[in-house]
Amino acid sequence: MTVMDRLDAEVRKKQAPVVVGLDPQLSLIPDPVKRIPFIEYGRTLEGAAEAIRIFNEGIIDAVADIVPAVKPQIAMYEQFGIPGLQAYLHTIEYAKSRGLLVIGDVKRGDIGSTSAAYSAAHIGRVDIDGESVPVFDEDFATVNPYLGTDGIRPFLEDCKAFDKGLFVLVKTSNPSSGEIQDQRLHGRKADAKLVYEHVAGLVETWGKELPGERYSSVGAVVGATYPKLGAKLRGEMPDTFFLVPGYGAQGAKAKDLTGYFDADGGGAIVNSSRGIIGAWQKPEYAGMPFATAARMAALDMIEDLRRALS
Amino acid sequence: MTVMDRLDAEVRKKQAPVVVGLDPQLSLIPDPVKRIPFIEYGRTLEGAAEAIRIFNEGIIDAVADIVPAVKPQIAMYEQFGIPGLQAYLHTIEYAKSRGLLVIGDVKRGDIGSTSAAYSAAHIGRVDIDGESVPVFDEDFATVNPYLGTDGIRPFLEDCKAFDKGLFVLVKTSNPSSGEIQDQRLHGRKADAKLVYEHVAGLVETWGKELPGERYSSVGAVVGATYPKLGAKLRGEMPDTFFLVPGYGAQGAKAKDLTGYFDADGGGAIVNSSRGIIGAWQKPEYAGMPFATAARMAALDMIEDLRRALS
Repeated sequence: MTVMDRLDAEVRKKQAPVVVGLDPQLSLIPDPVKRIPFIEYGRTLEGAAEAIRIFNEGIIDAVADIVPAVKPQIAMYEQFGIPGLQAYLHTIEYAKSRGLLVIGDVKRGDIGSTSAAYSAAHIGRVDIDGESVPVFDEDFATVNPYLGTDGIRPFLEDCKAFDKGLFVLVKTSNPSSGEIQDQRLHGRKADAKLVYEHVAGLVETWGKELPGERYSSVGAVVGATYPKLGAKLRGEMPDTFFLVPGYGAQGAKAKDLTGYFDADGGGAIVNSSRGIIGAWQKPEYAGMPFATAARMAALDMIEDLRRALS
Repeated sequence: MTVMDRLDAEVRKKQAPVVVGLDPQLSLIPDPVKRIPFIEYGRTLEGAAEAIRIFNEGIIDAVADIVPAVKPQIAMYEQFGIPGLQAYLHTIEYAKSRGLLVIGDVKRGDIGSTSAAYSAAHIGRVDIDGESVPVFDEDFATVNPYLGTDGIRPFLEDCKAFDKGLFVLVKTSNPSSGEIQDQRLHGRKADAKLVYEHVAGLVETWGKELPGERYSSVGAVVGATYPKLGAKLRGEMPDTFFLVPGYGAQGAKAKDLTGYFDADGGGAIVNSSRGIIGAWQKPEYAGMPFATAARMAALDMIEDLRRALS
């Protein structure tokens, strides 16, 4: 059973194709949570990181029994420098200790030798003159395909060696994604592919090296904001599990997402970040503690998806 | 005078269109440098990071008066986790203290709100509930264009606010770069662009927001391994300064690179990493201390480029 099989199984067991995006912008953290860290460390990188740590533990405790995975977005930690990255590491370790799978949303990608270092950092081990040491050690990492196969190769090797998984950017959820990803490639009209379709083909190819019971360990990021496209890619990528960002705050609704799933309701996991961790700011959860609001919002999202998929 | 103007001016002053890539893989660090850190910390992330710190200080001291800039590749630090990233930060600060410009080779890129966090981390400031705090604070960052303009926008805004610069991946030096970057787009044969040419057009457009005396503050990464392509892009991107990786270890020679420069010898800076920092391992510098070998290799590279460009 590969790590992607485990993700698929956890989704089915919890009946929740939902991943909670841990993107703890300070504006999403309630003032009372920030108060003590700011008294202790001031409005510093350390103060921000301590607030994030407390906040994330609260969120993780609140959702650990109802969702299969969390997805910390490393940029939201990297912006707080070394203390922020310590909070990123702590978040990974804490989530794993609560039985959650962890998708490191790092979107790394570079030439071969450099990708090897990124891969060691996130899903492999770093070799320190003979000592093999795990570093951030997420279960999955997101990667950028712009450099082609040799930029992905080291990640594939580490997936094999350490039973890890990838999600490769295919079609992102943001408004400008089409500037490059939707460019039509040269060819006869009937078979002229768009750039992201070409990348989708590469992802299926890479996945053949990492087969699972049903899905390969090389997944694809496919934004929730293009329902037709999601359904089309679902058909064209039968071996590929989808990570689907863009639900909620970015505008997509559950009924738009049914095409991203296989007929039996598998094959995809939908991310929500602000919609869950910032739920305490929304009128429908007003007055609830942030962690309770996050749990309620996650349950509402799960219910929304279950209804759409049934 | 923008930061890109300063880079251009430093290249001319030192007559050295050379950037030293600080990619300190442990195999490039001499055993005597690693000995004390490994005695003190063991073969751990801390031990590796301490060795990198000592090694980088030696390299920086050896080249600070002869080259305009260094380019630490963050992956080579990230693989050593938190201690590694502390060494990355130290390297940036130390290089700046020696008067060098610093290009953070981070190749970040994501949707808008996430790119804003990456940009704050590397070239902007992070806002901590009212306190504006610099984080890694490189002079330039490399960025990945796959997500389009809204993934680049936050970096452009921070370039304006804090006088920083970018190098956008256009055509990378690695063997598989063509899998996506060289795909031909749809259009009449005469004007059908390749993906990287399309990205080159975006870079010129983004650069219009950040004009300099001669070059905009939005540069392009163009691999040294495609001499004809470099010359063609040089003609098509008159306002864009090039960062050229792939000299030396990746196979390109100075005579291949003349086309990447403008007629007066400006407009580009060539990176060498292993070729300089690992020079002590090469027969021609055998027996020299690593820092002396690095200085000699940098001088040889500068001379090689001067000859080719004269």
